[in-house]
Amino acid sequence: MTVDKLDPDLLEGAAAAAEPAHESDSLDAENTLKPEFVRRVRDGLEAGENDAVYGLVEGLHPADIADLFELLDSDERPALAIAISDLMGSEVYAELNDYVREDIVEQLPAETVADIAEQLDTDDAVAMLEDLDEEDQQAVLAEMEPEDRAAIETALSYPEESAGRLMSRDFVAVPEHMTVGDLIDFLRDGRDLANEFWEVFIVDARFHPVGTCALSWILRTPRSIALTDVMQRDQTLIPVTMDQEEVALRFQKYALISAAVVDADGRLVGQITVDDVVHIIQEEAGEDVLLLSGAGEGDINEPIRDSYVARVRWLIANLATALLGATIISSFGGAIEKLVALAALSPMVASIGGNAGTQTMAVAVRALATNQLTRTNTTRILLREFRVAVLNGVTVATLIGVATALVFSNPLLGVVIGTAVVVNIITAGLAGVVVPVTLDRLGQDPAVASSVFVTMITDSMGFFAFLGLAVASGLVG
Amino acid sequence: MTVDKLDPDLLEGAAAAAEPAHESDSLDAENTLKPEFVRRVRDGLEAGENDAVYGLVEGLHPADIADLFELLDSDERPALAIAISDLMGSEVYAELNDYVREDIVEQLPAETVADIAEQLDTDDAVAMLEDLDEEDQQAVLAEMEPEDRAAIETALSYPEESAGRLMSRDFVAVPEHMTVGDLIDFLRDGRDLANEFWEVFIVDARFHPVGTCALSWILRTPRSIALTDVMQRDQTLIPVTMDQEEVALRFQKYALISAAVVDADGRLVGQITVDDVVHIIQEEAGEDVLLLSGAGEGDINEPIRDSYVARVRWLIANLATALLGATIISSFGGAIEKLVALAALSPMVASIGGNAGTQTMAVAVRALATNQLTRTNTTRILLREFRVAVLNGVTVATLIGVATALVFSNPLLGVVIGTAVVVNIITAGLAGVVVPVTLDRLGQDPAVASSVFVTMITDSMGFFAFLGLAVASGLVG
Repeated sequence: MTVDKLDPDLLEGAAAAAEPAHESDSLDAENTLKPEFVRRVRDGLEAGENDAVYGLVEGLHPADIADLFELLDSDERPALAIAISDLMGSEVYAELNDYVREDIVEQLPAETVADIAEQLDTDDAVAMLEDLDEEDQQAVLAEMEPEDRAAIETALSYPEESAGRLMSRDFVAVPEHMTVGDLIDFLRDGRDLANEFWEVFIVDARFHPVGTCALSWILRTPRSIALTDVMQRDQTLIPVTMDQEEVALRFQKYALISAAVVDADGRLVGQITVDDVVHIIQEEAGEDVLLLSGAGEGDINEPIRDSYVARVRWLIANLATALLGATIISSFGGAIEKLVALAALSPMVASIGGNAGTQTMAVAVRALATNQLTRTNTTRILLREFRVAVLNGVTVATLIGVATALVFSNPLLGVVIGTAVVVNIITAGLAGVVVPVTLDRLGQDPAVASSVFVTMITDSMGFFAFLGLAVASGLVG
Repeated sequence: MTVDKLDPDLLEGAAAAAEPAHESDSLDAENTLKPEFVRRVRDGLEAGENDAVYGLVEGLHPADIADLFELLDSDERPALAIAISDLMGSEVYAELNDYVREDIVEQLPAETVADIAEQLDTDDAVAMLEDLDEEDQQAVLAEMEPEDRAAIETALSYPEESAGRLMSRDFVAVPEHMTVGDLIDFLRDGRDLANEFWEVFIVDARFHPVGTCALSWILRTPRSIALTDVMQRDQTLIPVTMDQEEVALRFQKYALISAAVVDADGRLVGQITVDDVVHIIQEEAGEDVLLLSGAGEGDINEPIRDSYVARVRWLIANLATALLGATIISSFGGAIEKLVALAALSPMVASIGGNAGTQTMAVAVRALATNQLTRTNTTRILLREFRVAVLNGVTVATLIGVATALVFSNPLLGVVIGTAVVVNIITAGLAGVVVPVTLDRLGQDPAVASSVFVTMITDSMGFFAFLGLAVASGLVG
């Protein structure tokens, strides 16, 4: 832990500088666009005052311009795109939400889309084109320079959400016989190199990566030293077909800034940099809550029709599980007629089990997604969740049992509901681990279907244990 | 989009190199430790064969050694730490799960902890020490070099989860009058600089950052050019008190690799690099599912007692909402006695509303967390969710209404349940947006409490609408 500050005398003569940017009257404390600002843009668009709109938007960072598009209504977006066409650089398109970008791109001529795509890094261009209709995609590709078109077509040939789609073909690779000085001369040579890069890959004659070298090491090493003496040999290679979620986990685990992507023969074909991985980490970690709740992609920019289809399927699946619960209650109709309190209390038993199951399931799904829950520790985690469930079950059952016994002046009813709650919470704890782990072993995404099964188990067990115990205990004749 | 490959002739004479590392018989396809491997380590520890254990673990990456600790049972971890003490470098500690690290660190003498902390970057050292008891913390700090101790004490003076805790004091800052050549000489000078850095900060005489310079630009620019002509003036400055979630959002939005941290006077005090932000993005995005489900931190390494306390509170809160539902059902006891089918069907109406509410709530919570849902577009999103809810409500109500009418040969019962389902799904859609947005405006984390309120609303509305309509429609006398 050292502080690399300067000697104070090095600072002599340094002039006072202007305050740095990014703060403006368009952004609030949370770095989102202010409602007043968006209203002024909206009013300007409505009044057709394109110059005024341009003046407002001109100072924004491309990422904030992208946010502005997302905040406007769908029918206002084309007018904004026209008003600020000079500012619609490739960076804005790269930052746009997929749905919003598709919305705008579909309204542009193929030639304009091709111009934008050519300015983008391959990975951003692929993101822009991959969601277009086959026909529109072909029209855009036909307008592109052969070299760029070939790069995009190659990328599109890899599976969706794979490293091949995510990687950039802009990287710096040099042969292993170079010295640090050779490398610096090569970089200074004014070649058409990548715009920004953080590591240099060292390759052998077969173009297999043999090491990487952070730029800071190069800057700090004398020119005469061989690259093979500076480079790090132990590197994380990403197969071109690897799923983006796996890629994100590697970046996170090994704290990578960039990584070499290799084809099936081990040849270097691209690089992935951490800034492209950051939003994947965010999406993949955030999608569990959306998937578990059955909200599909859960993007607020998704067309209503898509949201409807994704969610209604889930509601219907849950309907089926609720039907099972209703059937169990129906079969105890006689008992309920005799003691109507059973009707009021049985949903509580089911609901508490559901809550406990959801807790355990959320923990298990996250642990599976982050590779913390593996074959090695499944038994330990199951035991752990069993213990937590016993503690929770006894606590909640005591509360609900005593309360019920007092309210209904019926101690046996209290014992019955308490016992049912313990049974259901323990069932929930076990199901909350076993269901997602089983789905994972079967190669399914545990976040997608766990919830239906766990709810089905806790609902059924709740109704069955409570009503069954009520009958078995002689509470109702 | 250009490919920066080499001329093939540059590759002449390059020798075939060894295959790169990270693949071993200890890791499976998903890059997690194989159960057989962990079993061999476990057996070795049990038999006291420390040399054999050392041999097994020796080839692992520090991040994998950290994983190994997490996979072992709590009582096996000290034995492993002893067996491989030579391999327990600072990198292993930096990668360990917080709970597991605390577990191990608490068993080490203060002097050893101080030695490890001195090797770590400030941010990692802080992460290691911040969870210790005040007394243990002081004991460790007392053993440290004054300079390192001062750095950690300063960091600990910032709020938890703030930029000040997260930042590293190892950064490179140079005055604005330097040229590219001056900078390279300064870096080559063999000073005690940061080990790895990706950008150089340019500061004025008051130590205020005026620009940043990626190392790739420096390497590609002639020595005589002034740094102020190469640097990027427009930079994202992170205030030292900023919450880590905000920091993560900035990194993501502006695709940053590193950023300058400034104090209240605008002076450069540290830097945050993207590799430290990546796991925050993952945690913050992943914690929504855990918080919404009421699982607290939801870490499988958390002590059982902590998990119990976090979860039981939530179950008791939900008990209260379930009680409200039970009270509503009870108040319709007369109707249920006359038509016991009401008891079987009312949980379905409540449960479907709960599912629909959870979907919308998950979408709203994610959109709030990623700054996509702001004051500017709340009305539009509410309207959007209303539309989706109407579509879902009509679809599900038709299914359940027709099925009920047929099964019970009672068309009026079908109409009643269908109407109640439409009402409840629309209520759920609105509550799913209004509840989290209101909590957010009140400065609360919408992921923490939304679920209790939304469930309470959909449960109550489900029972009340269904049983109320049954009575009002004259279905039951």
